[in-house]
Amino acid sequence: MPQPYKTTRRVEFRDTDAAGIAHFSMFFVYMEQAEHELLRHLGLSVMSADEHGPFTFPRVATRCDYQRAVKFEDVLSIEVSIVRLGQKSITFEFNFTLDGRPIATGQITTVCCRFSPDGTPASISIPTWMAEKLSQVVVDAP
Amino acid sequence: MPQPYKTTRRVEFRDTDAAGIAHFSMFFVYMEQAEHELLRHLGLSVMSADEHGPFTFPRVATRCDYQRAVKFEDVLSIEVSIVRLGQKSITFEFNFTLDGRPIATGQITTVCCRFSPDGTPASISIPTWMAEKLSQVVVDAP
Amino acid sequence: MPQPYKTTRRVEFRDTDAAGIAHFSMFFVYMEQAEHELLRHLGLSVMSADEHGPFTFPRVATRCDYQRAVKFEDVLSIEVSIVRLGQKSITFEFNFTLDGRPIATGQITTVCCRFSPDGTPASISIPTWMAEKLSQVVVDAP
Amino acid sequence: MPQPYKTTRRVEFRDTDAAGIAHFSMFFVYMEQAEHELLRHLGLSVMSADEHGPFTFPRVATRCDYQRAVKFEDVLSIEVSIVRLGQKSITFEFNFTLDGRPIATGQITTVCCRFSPDGTPASISIPTWMAEKLSQVVVDAP
Repeated sequence: MPQPYKTTRRVEFRDTDAAGIAHFSMFFVYMEQAEHELLRHLGLSVMSADEHGPFTFPRVATRCDYQRAVKFEDVLSIEVSIVRLGQKSITFEFNFTLDGRPIATGQITTVCCRFSPDGTPASISIPTWMAEKLSQVVVDAP
Repeated sequence: MPQPYKTTRRVEFRDTDAAGIAHFSMFFVYMEQAEHELLRHLGLSVMSADEHGPFTFPRVATRCDYQRAVKFEDVLSIEVSIVRLGQKSITFEFNFTLDGRPIATGQITTVCCRFSPDGTPASISIPTWMAEKLSQVVVDAP
Repeated sequence: MPQPYKTTRRVEFRDTDAAGIAHFSMFFVYMEQAEHELLRHLGLSVMSADEHGPFTFPRVATRCDYQRAVKFEDVLSIEVSIVRLGQKSITFEFNFTLDGRPIATGQITTVCCRFSPDGTPASISIPTWMAEKLSQVVVDAP
Repeated sequence: MPQPYKTTRRVEFRDTDAAGIAHFSMFFVYMEQAEHELLRHLGLSVMSADEHGPFTFPRVATRCDYQRAVKFEDVLSIEVSIVRLGQKSITFEFNFTLDGRPIATGQITTVCCRFSPDGTPASISIPTWMAEKLSQVVVDAP
């Protein structure tokens, strides 16, 4: 049965700002780091290739709602799941907590793309072998 | 008549990533820099005070939709407006273009807060003198 | 007998730049993170206090020499030692390797300071209890 | 007669940390931004090419000495000069001041390199046309 992937992340000093808390933009960096860690855990990578060449996952939409601020050396718990696995796109959801208290919830939506030599992306179907592995963390959106 | 505030931002080398483009998280940093520039333009500051003491604007929600990637040394045009000016909260909207082509659109929602000595925030009404200045960039949401 | 403290750090995607490698400025962030991890390991903190109040360690000099570039997902080995423990200052040295090959060597020199209410720092002697713990990683400079 | 190139840089909120000041690692980012601005001013680029293909300037050594801390919205004055223009390498020096008071002094040493297809760099002589332009900011080291 699908389950969120769980990891942690310590708030480093460079992550903080003059308000004494982790800067709101850092949550997007934490999300991406957790996504990449999940992919490694599943034996996948954000830089992949099949017999037709390399493909990757540019971001098309991101969002984050913040409930509480966190400080230097706080260790955040992060749950990563996929709330929508489309034919060509993936929406990851990230729940951040600290000692069981809600901190933030965010989403990253990415689209599977190949790039032409001039750098133009074209969306493609997520390969079946990749979709099968990703399905291990597909949960029903709450 | 209210008008968006216009500014520009050059993509610096540290803003890019190994995909050769500006990292998606940087758009949140660009948004905040444009917001602060707007506040300075209006004679305001993100760190304010009135006769009851200091107040500030923690972020409660952020989002960004991405249409096209940008590269090192691209100079983005940014339009900043307020699409919702509530009694206690502000939603800024940011439109990024490059040579007239859409790049990204984002929002930051902040809440006016005082902090108690232990760091707990409590929302307060945005002071009238501040709301009046902010109204110069309040536009109808499209 | 004093020994360097050993840790590791994975190169995250946001750490890279359009040259496809970890940005040179990130090594200073990695150094600080390793320094803070060492302090936690020794039961110390970069934000300390004694009976006279808080004190901290602003940086007065930093440097890094780079031997080889590293890429996304490389896991760097880091050795942290103190190459000079003065009465008021500390010079940390950091050796970065990847699979035994030298990557970079850096230093951070910090001075123990109290801050007056207006923010002016004044250097003070490192407390004896702190210097004793730090001496566990004081090695002779090569 | 050679003269340092002069520019400014505002301390943005994301540049600060929980100590309330610009993080020490940001000075390396400011240095690189000022270097790139100088290169644009001279009609050059950090990503160059000649008839034999592209070449670039990886960093081999960086350093910074810090005299005073700076805060959010401070506007730093920066003077950029070249204190050593070798056959294959360049050492840039950066002097940061705020209202005439010294803030920091840093250096970046880069080597002119071509990269083989597998990513291995090989140092090459700086092209004459580039060295001639760079000589406009070569000053005697103090």
